[in-house]
Amino acid sequence: MSRLRFKISMSLDGYVAGPSQSVENPLGLGGTRLHEWAFRLKEFRTLLGLEGGERNESSPVVEESLANIGATIMGRHMFGGHPGPWDADKPWTGWWGANPPFHHPVFVLTHHARAPLEMQGGTRFIFVTSGIQSALEQAWHAAAGKDVCLAGGAHAAQQYLAAGLVDEMEINLVPTLLGSGERLFDGVGDSLYGLHLVRTVAAPGVTHLKFARP
Amino acid sequence: MSRLRFKISMSLDGYVAGPSQSVENPLGLGGTRLHEWAFRLKEFRTLLGLEGGERNESSPVVEESLANIGATIMGRHMFGGHPGPWDADKPWTGWWGANPPFHHPVFVLTHHARAPLEMQGGTRFIFVTSGIQSALEQAWHAAAGKDVCLAGGAHAAQQYLAAGLVDEMEINLVPTLLGSGERLFDGVGDSLYGLHLVRTVAAPGVTHLKFARP
Repeated sequence: MSRLRFKISMSLDGYVAGPSQSVENPLGLGGTRLHEWAFRLKEFRTLLGLEGGERNESSPVVEESLANIGATIMGRHMFGGHPGPWDADKPWTGWWGANPPFHHPVFVLTHHARAPLEMQGGTRFIFVTSGIQSALEQAWHAAAGKDVCLAGGAHAAQQYLAAGLVDEMEINLVPTLLGSGERLFDGVGDSLYGLHLVRTVAAPGVTHLKFARP
Repeated sequence: MSRLRFKISMSLDGYVAGPSQSVENPLGLGGTRLHEWAFRLKEFRTLLGLEGGERNESSPVVEESLANIGATIMGRHMFGGHPGPWDADKPWTGWWGANPPFHHPVFVLTHHARAPLEMQGGTRFIFVTSGIQSALEQAWHAAAGKDVCLAGGAHAAQQYLAAGLVDEMEINLVPTLLGSGERLFDGVGDSLYGLHLVRTVAAPGVTHLKFARP
């Protein structure tokens, strides 16, 4: 059965992005610290078209997280660029350059309608203004039997968690403090909506905590 | 060299106590969920004078946390009872009964002076109104070469962390959400004050994250 699989990197104090996010600082001040564990990995660097990198305890976790994904959902903020209606003259095309590392349909939750955006390498950004349930249905259809990845950010994740729609959750817990920014678990209540911790992996610079339904 | 060793159980959303703490609910609503991993352990039950319990991956962590401690520091809120001046008619003597599980001097940070309180089994509560640095100096002296345990709660820990006085920190991360209450890492900034993750232990119902100075 296909699953909605959420993955995100989070600081020890619960932030998934630092303060003062901007086009220059998409992850907010200090936010890159959340992803240092990934940038040192061969698997992650290959995905971004970069050379080098190491294999370590995180490698199987990253390989698992990339396997069998047929579509991705993300929030407008994670797609990035600027708030409000899309700029018609200089439309934002995401953080990832001409050939984004998805290579499948990516559904972007937004309040502002926009035509789909075809990128190189099989990535197609589809802009969904009809809410999280509609985005998920479209993503299931596009994934054609594979799983759907929920990539974040905090606000999109909070909505899917609170609706009980997340089947798997991988928290990459980074042993650092950001002090402020966007907290993942704000306003989602006091339950994990049926998710239980099923696997812990200690790796350099990160602890991978996998939650799933029993 | 003697060290100040801080240990605390924290939910995935960063809370070390639930909301609505009271004499009836010292850990706040849902707060007992933070300690279920400990209550199933033989080592912890023995400490509280209870029978039964199991040994698991947490056992060595608990044994290590109890070893070589000569004094404990805690906040007034953790000592508990009621806020404000001490009740002269019915003075609060802590949550732990006549024979508390410390068996050494315990320094309680408070704004309200009070004579020391001698309990059974070697536990002596000393009430310190002269601040965290003074409490630490008194605790070093009482520990006589052993380490000092910083037991919490959040507010006391935040003060010692922000002052750069914590030498070791054991976060017992519990895979649950409390939704509200007292957050450990609020107002302590964006650094860990020289502490680095040095060890991760995955155990039933908890992940033990140990931080120390390099």
